[in-house]
Parts: sequence; structure tokens; C-alpha cells
Amino acid sequence: MKVAVVGVGLIGGSIGLAARQRLHATVSGFDPDAVTLERAVGLGAIDEAATSIADAVQGAELVICAAPVGALPAVVGEALAAVGPEAVVTDVGSTKREIVAKLGSDERFIGGHPLAGAETSGVQNARAELLEGARWYLTPTSDSAGLLYDRLQRAVADFGARPQAIDPAEHDELMATVSHLPHVIANVLAGHAAARLGQSPERMPEAGPSLRDTTRVAGANPKVWGDIFTSNSEALAAAIDAAIGRLREASELIRGGDAEAVSGWQRRAAEDRRNLLESELAGGMLREVRVVVPNRPGVVAELALALGKAGVNIEDMALHPAADMRSGAISLWVAGDEQADRAVELVRGLGYGVTAESG
Amino acid sequence: MKVAVVGVGLIGGSIGLAARQRLHATVSGFDPDAVTLERAVGLGAIDEAATSIADAVQGAELVICAAPVGALPAVVGEALAAVGPEAVVTDVGSTKREIVAKLGSDERFIGGHPLAGAETSGVQNARAELLEGARWYLTPTSDSAGLLYDRLQRAVADFGARPQAIDPAEHDELMATVSHLPHVIANVLAGHAAARLGQSPERMPEAGPSLRDTTRVAGANPKVWGDIFTSNSEALAAAIDAAIGRLREASELIRGGDAEAVSGWQRRAAEDRRNLLESELAGGMLREVRVVVPNRPGVVAELALALGKAGVNIEDMALHPAADMRSGAISLWVAGDEQADRAVELVRGLGYGVTAESG
Repeated sequence: MKVAVVGVGLIGGSIGLAARQRLHATVSGFDPDAVTLERAVGLGAIDEAATSIADAVQGAELVICAAPVGALPAVVGEALAAVGPEAVVTDVGSTKREIVAKLGSDERFIGGHPLAGAETSGVQNARAELLEGARWYLTPTSDSAGLLYDRLQRAVADFGARPQAIDPAEHDELMATVSHLPHVIANVLAGHAAARLGQSPERMPEAGPSLRDTTRVAGANPKVWGDIFTSNSEALAAAIDAAIGRLREASELIRGGDAEAVSGWQRRAAEDRRNLLESELAGGMLREVRVVVPNRPGVVAELALALGKAGVNIEDMALHPAADMRSGAISLWVAGDEQADRAVELVRGLGYGVTAESG
Repeated sequence: MKVAVVGVGLIGGSIGLAARQRLHATVSGFDPDAVTLERAVGLGAIDEAATSIADAVQGAELVICAAPVGALPAVVGEALAAVGPEAVVTDVGSTKREIVAKLGSDERFIGGHPLAGAETSGVQNARAELLEGARWYLTPTSDSAGLLYDRLQRAVADFGARPQAIDPAEHDELMATVSHLPHVIANVLAGHAAARLGQSPERMPEAGPSLRDTTRVAGANPKVWGDIFTSNSEALAAAIDAAIGRLREASELIRGGDAEAVSGWQRRAAEDRRNLLESELAGGMLREVRVVVPNRPGVVAELALALGKAGVNIEDMALHPAADMRSGAISLWVAGDEQADRAVELVRGLGYGVTAESG
């Protein structure tokens, strides 16, 4: 297999290493920064340094674009223009709605987002293990080619990551909730506290663990986050508005002066956090669910999205196209009997023939 | 010296231990919970278990009330009613405006708030070291007796803590900023994320370090925080309103779609957090600043507040009343030449004679 990686920093470099080590692929890499590119070769993250995006993607079956969010639409567009009709092109950007809206009509492009980061950056910190066990969102659409999606999600699983299909807008809303809004809030708290400090130079107390925790990500990499916030402006602004609504309710409740009612609110918050921590569902034995489907674009996405929406995670997937290429079967592996039963019910509800191996 | 501790849980128990070990005081303790009281004796946190607040404070020169915030006004009131005219009574509550407004006109009461907590609670976790190096706010008013304030801040310093005078309203505003608002925000973020989770059962991504950090204190001890929020409702609601204002600006900025402008905002947030972390000023050698003053109530508070407001921290203080008890001198120790020079300038500005030992 030939893999192309465009942008060989921390994430791109780690993907290159994983592709070489685990897919035994030949990896061609490109980076606009010559020093980074050279370093990636030296570290064994890529086999060969390409001179351009077009050069890198020549003959590739899988192209992974790991450029900054703001640069991704142009980079992915260039890759799609240069790569062959049988290649799948993906990206690793933190937001998906914008880029999928721009490029998702090309059946070869499927957006991606591995939840793998580190306090560090740069190719010198790249390692295949960075992707190990990481949730890796994929955003197929009804235009996506099923076979290409299958190749992509299989590669992701081979990297040791856990692919999960999700609707691009839903992905962005989820990221707004679990990541972007907390970053905005951190900025706001730091700004408020700093203004308070400026207003009266009395020293701030050292023991502010709650402020320290809540502002930890304030002002994180300005260039990167400027792009992320902007490219997810719609979902993020909606999340901010929701937070404003909740703050207004809190302010009203607290002004009301009913300590019992405030304690009740506090108890519900404790419950909320418990639910968040417990939402990482326990798994179970893998079970295969086999679906008989017309072999046309859109089916894989439809299945993956329906199951994802219902909380059923596809741990593995395989396409079995029939010889006529107009019908076929899809095998899905999910964890545990409960998820398998739910998957069967959902797939049946979509009108497809389905069987599950006994648990 | 005889010290009374009313409420002998984690904080009260630690104060009892510190008073016995470091002040070589005889400590009388009371707690409404008989088991806690017995345990405090067993652990050596107090010398003797009293049968009531009035019993505990008999003959005490220093009374420290370590009850929950909601119970403090009644507890301190009972202590003041029972204790002699020469005693100083303080509390350790997280909010100060309400209780000082209620009881601050009694020259014997000076509010206090040690920034010493722990993930644990209960007298079994009490230890004198809990107070070591802790900022300990004191809220003298113009009604406070100077000699009693001196005794209190000296005891606090002897516990190994660092006393700092502050205006009660300013204290509450500061706490709203560095502690109470972050707690409210944590609740709001947890609530928003949990609601999002409920709305679509798709599993939340595990890799949410920013959400984890920002919601760490969500739903902390509901009874305790219900009281704290309620007794600081004014300053806290104002802080929430300020946060809402900042969130609205952020929402507008992000909706605007100018990635450069958003990056600029992110850079300012990074600067804000740096300023917060650097606000723990570096100290220096202690220098004595001697102030000649009329020996009347209010002067100590005036000096302590003026210096505190200017960022000059009083590390130690001593009163030298003249024989006529109508004039005297106050020695203040501050860290470093710069703070000493600033202290001299400020005190001179208040119209008092002042000298500083050479650095």
C-alpha cells in the first residue's frame, strides 16, 4: 500500500510512523517546511520526501492531510486534484462541517479527526503510539464511496485507533461542547481575573486551585485556536449562547438567596459530572452483525451514522461486494450483546436484511 | 494563652493542633457532633472538650469559630455573647461581607479566612501543617480594636500562615473571581455537556482534557457550596454578569469569522493567564517600617488595608502602645526594599510619621 502524508508535524509524523510500522506501507510525505520534511525522513516517519502535494500523492491509495485547520481546505483540494480516482483522501482537522461542506461532494474525500494530541508538538515528538486507542472520528456522507470508507476506517483501526462515524455538524457540536467551549470559558475566566487583578494590585491568593484548573487551557496556541474557533463558529457560538443562558439562570438562583435551592443545583451538577465520567461505556466481546445491502454509495455512511447516533460503536467493519458490484454485504463488529442486539434492530429498521452471529 | 476552637473538623482541628504545638496554648474545643468532639480530644487537637460554646470560650483570649458558613453568624454571635471583653473572636468562613456586616461593629470580632483546604475533610485529617504558608485573610474594620487585631494576626503568623488584611467586600469580590465563579462555571459546563449527552446518546469522546479540567470542581460539596454561593450572592452574581458580558463579546467575535482577530483574543488570554500566575510576587528580605500613630481603633485597619490595596504585604506586625494608651507606634515588616519604600510613601500619604530601617 502506498500512503501519502501531507504535513508531517506531530500528528502527520505519527501517522507516517504508524503506516510504515503497522500497515507496512510505503509512505511519501510532504511539508512546506523543508527542515520538518528532512527531519521526518531522518526519524523514519516517511520513506520519501516529496517536492509538492501533487508529487506526494502520486500513486497513493490513502492520502492523509495533517495541515493546520485554516490551511486544510486548500491542501485537501490540491490533493484531490492530483490524486487518482481510486484513492481515499482524509484530513485530521479539529472541525469538520466547513471542510466537508466544501469538499464532501467528492466521493474520495472523507473527513477525519483523531482525538490524539499532546502537550508537545513537532515531528521530533511523533510516535506511532500517539494514535493507540485514540477515538478517530470519520465523517462519511451520502456521497462517500463505500469501498473507500472501508479502506480508511480499516487503516485507522490498523493504526491502533478506534474509528467512529459521525455526522460533520454533530461532530462540530460535540467538539464545541467538550473542547471549544471549555477553551472559550478558560479565556473568559482568565480575562475576568486578570482585569480584577489590574483594577486592584492587591496580590491574588496563591491557593486558587479552581481558577487554576478552569483557566489551564486559556490562550492555548493562538494561531491554531483562532482557526478552530473560526471554522466552528456556528456550533461554538450556539454553545456559548447556551452557557450564557445557564449562567443567567445560575445568577438568578444565587441572587434569590435560597441556600437550599442552590444546594439542589449543586447536587445536580455533581450528578451531571458523574454522568459525563460514566459515559465512557464499558465494552464487551466483539460480535459480528452482517447486513445485506445494495452496493451503492451512501449505504455505509447511513449505517455508520445510524449506529453512531444510537450509541452503538462500530469497532470494525468489512465490505463484501457481490460480483456484480450492485449488491453485497457489510460486516460490522460491535462490542457486547446489548450493542449487537441494538444494531440488529436499527439496521432492520432501515429496511436492510440483517443477521447477527450468536453471542 | 487560652484558645477556644468552636467546630473541630478539618480546619478547626488543624488550628487546635497548631495552637497547642506552636502557641503552647491550652485549647478548649466544642463541636455539636459528640463523636467529632471526642475524636478531637483523642487526636490531641484540643486539650478539653467543652459542653457548649459558652463553656468553650470561658477565659479564652482568642476564639476561632470554624463552623460551616451558614451557621457562622449564630455561632460567632453566641461566642461574642459569652466571652470576656478582652478576647478577640474570629471565624474561618469563605465569605466575609455578610458576617462582618452583622457582627463587625463589635470591636472584638475580626473576620478571617485561611486559604487552607484539602480534598479531605474531618478532624481525622487535621494537621498543624495544613496552615503552613497559607494566605489567611483578616477583615478588620474601623470598629476593630487594634490590640486585638494585633493578637489575632500574630497568632495566625505563629501558626505558620501569612495574615493579610483586606476589606470584607473586596475579599468577597476576590473570592468570587478566583473561586466561586470558577465553581459556577464548572457547574454550567458540566450541565451543558450532560444535556448534550442526554440529547444524543452517542458516546462522549474520552479525550476531553479541557472539559475534565474545567468541570473538575462541578457539584463540589452541595451543602457547603450552597451556603457559600448564597452568602456571597452579591459579588458572585456580579462576577457571573461580568462573565456573561465577556462570553457575549467572545460569541460576537467568533461569529464575525475573522480568524486573525480571534487569534489576537487568544493571545490576550495567554497574556492574562501569565499575569495571573506571575501575580504571586517574589519576596525579599524583611524590612521594618515603624509608624507613629494615635493609639485609637481603626488605625491598624487603615494601615493594613492601604498597604494591602497597594500590593504591599505585611509579613509581621507589632503594636507599641505608649504608656498613656493614647498614642503609640506600629512596626510593620514587609518583604524587600521596593515594598518597604512603597509602604513608607503610602503611610506618609496617610499623614502619619514613619521611618524605615535601612535595607
